[in-house]
Amino acid sequence: MTEQSTFAPRSSTEADEEGLAFAPKFDAAGLVTCVATDAKTGDVLMVAHMNAEALRRTIESGEAWYFSRSRKSLWRKGESSGHVQRVLEMRVDCDQDAVWIKVEQQGPGACHTGRRSCFYRAVPLGKAGAATLQFRDADKTFDPGKVYDK
Amino acid sequence: MTEQSTFAPRSSTEADEEGLAFAPKFDAAGLVTCVATDAKTGDVLMVAHMNAEALRRTIESGEAWYFSRSRKSLWRKGESSGHVQRVLEMRVDCDQDAVWIKVEQQGPGACHTGRRSCFYRAVPLGKAGAATLQFRDADKTFDPGKVYDK
Repeated sequence: MTEQSTFAPRSSTEADEEGLAFAPKFDAAGLVTCVATDAKTGDVLMVAHMNAEALRRTIESGEAWYFSRSRKSLWRKGESSGHVQRVLEMRVDCDQDAVWIKVEQQGPGACHTGRRSCFYRAVPLGKAGAATLQFRDADKTFDPGKVYDK
Repeated sequence: MTEQSTFAPRSSTEADEEGLAFAPKFDAAGLVTCVATDAKTGDVLMVAHMNAEALRRTIESGEAWYFSRSRKSLWRKGESSGHVQRVLEMRVDCDQDAVWIKVEQQGPGACHTGRRSCFYRAVPLGKAGAATLQFRDADKTFDPGKVYDK
C-alpha cells in the first residue's frame, strides 16, 4: 500500500470539514497530532505524532504506531516495552490535522517514565506568578529501567 | 505579569520530567499543544495550541485561551460565540510540550462547524486502501452562521 491510496488529497475547506474523504492535513514536517485516551476511563494517556506511514499502519493493524520527532523514526507503541495500544476507535477533527484514538492500553502504562499516563502533574489554576506543579495520579506502575533498553 | 515569572526555564530531562517546576517546552513557533476534554463525558472536544501568553491567561483566569496559528493571534475561546470553556483542571505531560485541560463547555459546542466536539468523524480500522470517514456524534448543535462573525 502507498499513502496515496489510503489518503485523499486536500480539497476545499467545505469538503475537508463536511465530507467523508480522509484527507489528513500533515504539517511541514509531515505529521498530524494524535491524542490517545484510555477507552475505559477517558483519561488522556499521551499526545504524540503520526506521519503518513504511522497513520496508515495504525489504521490497517488496529495498533498504535507513531513517529518519534526526537528519534526521527517510525515507532510501534510497545515495541520495546510490550505496552501495546489496541485502537478501539479513531476519530479525525474538523480540519483533519489531529486524530483521537481510544485505546486499550496493554500492560501497566503508556508513559516512558513508568506511569499509566504522561499527564501525571497538575498545574494550579487561578493564581498569577510562578506555577508550581502538583503530582496527580503519579504513582509509578512499572520500572522503566526494567522495561526499556533491554 | 510576564511569562518569565509564570514559567521556569527548561532544565535537565530528569528535572523537567520528575520535578515540580512548570517549564513548558514551547516549539519553534512558541507553542504547546492543548487537548481539551469534556470534564463530564471525557470526550475530546478539540486540539489547539497555546503560546506563553495564552497559557498564562488560561492559568490565571480559569478560562481557556488559545493561539490561532491561521489568524496568528491570541484567542479567548468563546469570545465571539459565547461558548466559553471553564477549566476545571490542567495537566502537563512528561516532557511538558502538551497540556490537557478538562473543561466545562459553555453553550452548545466547541467546534466552529456547529458541533459539540471537533471529532465528529470516525476513521474505519482494519482495512487497507482508501479510508472513507463515517459521521459519528455529528449532529449540529448550533448554527455557526448565527453564532460567529456577528
